[in-house]
Amino acid sequence: MSTVGTPDRNSGWLSEDDLAEARRRLPLLYVEAVPVRVDGLGRVTEVGTLLRAADGSISRTIVSGRVLHGETLRDALFRHLEKDLGPMAFPQLPASPVPFHVAEYFPWPTEGGFLDTRQHAVALAYVVPVTGTCEPRQDALEVTWLRPEEAASEELAREMEGGRGVLLRAALASAGRLP
Amino acid sequence: MSTVGTPDRNSGWLSEDDLAEARRRLPLLYVEAVPVRVDGLGRVTEVGTLLRAADGSISRTIVSGRVLHGETLRDALFRHLEKDLGPMAFPQLPASPVPFHVAEYFPWPTEGGFLDTRQHAVALAYVVPVTGTCEPRQDALEVTWLRPEEAASEELAREMEGGRGVLLRAALASAGRLP
Amino acid sequence: MSTVGTPDRNSGWLSEDDLAEARRRLPLLYVEAVPVRVDGLGRVTEVGTLLRAADGSISRTIVSGRVLHGETLRDALFRHLEKDLGPMAFPQLPASPVPFHVAEYFPWPTEGGFLDTRQHAVALAYVVPVTGTCEPRQDALEVTWLRPEEAASEELAREMEGGRGVLLRAALASAGRLP
Amino acid sequence: MSTVGTPDRNSGWLSEDDLAEARRRLPLLYVEAVPVRVDGLGRVTEVGTLLRAADGSISRTIVSGRVLHGETLRDALFRHLEKDLGPMAFPQLPASPVPFHVAEYFPWPTEGGFLDTRQHAVALAYVVPVTGTCEPRQDALEVTWLRPEEAASEELAREMEGGRGVLLRAALASAGRLP
Repeated sequence: MSTVGTPDRNSGWLSEDDLAEARRRLPLLYVEAVPVRVDGLGRVTEVGTLLRAADGSISRTIVSGRVLHGETLRDALFRHLEKDLGPMAFPQLPASPVPFHVAEYFPWPTEGGFLDTRQHAVALAYVVPVTGTCEPRQDALEVTWLRPEEAASEELAREMEGGRGVLLRAALASAGRLP
Repeated sequence: MSTVGTPDRNSGWLSEDDLAEARRRLPLLYVEAVPVRVDGLGRVTEVGTLLRAADGSISRTIVSGRVLHGETLRDALFRHLEKDLGPMAFPQLPASPVPFHVAEYFPWPTEGGFLDTRQHAVALAYVVPVTGTCEPRQDALEVTWLRPEEAASEELAREMEGGRGVLLRAALASAGRLP
Repeated sequence: MSTVGTPDRNSGWLSEDDLAEARRRLPLLYVEAVPVRVDGLGRVTEVGTLLRAADGSISRTIVSGRVLHGETLRDALFRHLEKDLGPMAFPQLPASPVPFHVAEYFPWPTEGGFLDTRQHAVALAYVVPVTGTCEPRQDALEVTWLRPEEAASEELAREMEGGRGVLLRAALASAGRLP
Repeated sequence: MSTVGTPDRNSGWLSEDDLAEARRRLPLLYVEAVPVRVDGLGRVTEVGTLLRAADGSISRTIVSGRVLHGETLRDALFRHLEKDLGPMAFPQLPASPVPFHVAEYFPWPTEGGFLDTRQHAVALAYVVPVTGTCEPRQDALEVTWLRPEEAASEELAREMEGGRGVLLRAALASAGRLP
């Protein structure tokens, strides 16, 4: 289904050292997805967050990952959705490539509020309805589905990695579901 | 599935005379939908147009209709999609209520290029993927599926009612598929 | 500066009785604007709200008004900005006619949260930077400029007419300034 | 006016060799701007293109440049606008960080139509009204202002570098000015 053929993972592949070097020199391009459940009229009814265990602590995040050299944004988005939600999630990628938000993560605190201690990353964020069954893989423990009011709460915002509570609220705002 | 209950069709109902009067006094609110087919990555592959026979001539249009008093935009959009494409089209309404374009139709020629000799109408226009089978009803003769290049052509633009060729191009632009 | 000539205020004019009748039969089309101050890079630094005294109580709102028959959305937006902020506000209307949000006001409580006891109104809402001096006219007492954190607060939301606190937050989200 | 302080140009600086290496390994992040003139109601009246002489041939492009490590999108956009249009252009950066389009440039031909033989670049593209005087610097020969119909023409599209004719049309579509 790729639109430009398989990304060239050889040339796109970076050793740990090279990636560490690139992270000090360039902003890295990410795609992020807020998984949602919708009703028959397309209205968002629930928002999904991923519970993660990392470094001995528990935190929440959304679908997120790097765009590889030679990879389209759609291919990257689909690849990370499958990696984080499993092969049976059946995500409906948006017709438009324009994100609902562009999140700028810096390794230092900024007014924007997004933080990534590893790197300067710019993430194109999308709302993606999923119609199937989510089976989180890799380091995600589970997908938790929340009502819009819960997803917009201060309490949840404190649990979200890197300031992504704001991203959940912006996602709800774009869907007309901000409480 | 209505979000505010059944629209109050009694109070919303207008006699032909009342509607004619309202059309002379107020801009009428419309919703319009460009039906599309998408691939597994959400990319638009085909654009649907409705072939109509009216007043002895043939023309093309998209899904279009009035919003009733008490009716939500989603309910109106779903109602007109079902009316024009049949009950088995299975449209996927967008999560966001923000249209890709707002088309302003006037009964006289304007720079915007949209014309509706009956009235001043303002239409919120959406791109809507349909996953089922379209069986046009009412006065629509058939749904024709076109590749993006065909949908954006000058030739097709001339067949579209009320200047809606521009709307097809704006829909393609919003989907990153303008040739 | 009108794009279609002066709206036809004769045919567009409605007697109080006719307007009351239309309000019971049709959704009315509105434009709304959230006035903002921006810095040299276009970043929103302050959000304006209008303090109003009506029916003996004080409330807050944003720029809001009906679109007349024959009037473009831009003309309506400019007219209401001038009416509410005075002739020296120098608003910068957006290049795009696509609103950041579509607010659906019903005369009864709905999930969307927007309420207008007089009518069913659908408002296209825009963020509009103003660069001049605001001198509220008509029934507006004053324009209050708030920092993004204040504009997004629960406290302010309670003072906003018709549920427009949500609209302020959606405006901030669209500007990447939601706290 | 920077929101995160001066970008760290030491760590962000890349030798020619390092940049060449990065270009083979990572998608590079760009910002692009379509400069426009607007009337008093914010309507786009003219679109600016940059005439360039490179490698002995003449071509047209828009404002375009890389985002540096540690630099915000706004800072990068402002920096490239100043570099390409001069210090007296007085650009009005949009309140929203969401681009009207995301252009994916690959070093090989793709369906999207954007081509950059040097690299895989992803560009966030914005429509930016300029109110002052443009004095192109560096390798740009001049800024040419075109009416919307000219900017959308096939003829102009053939002169635009890297497939950016589509980007001009998408910019016009987002501004409601596609002919």
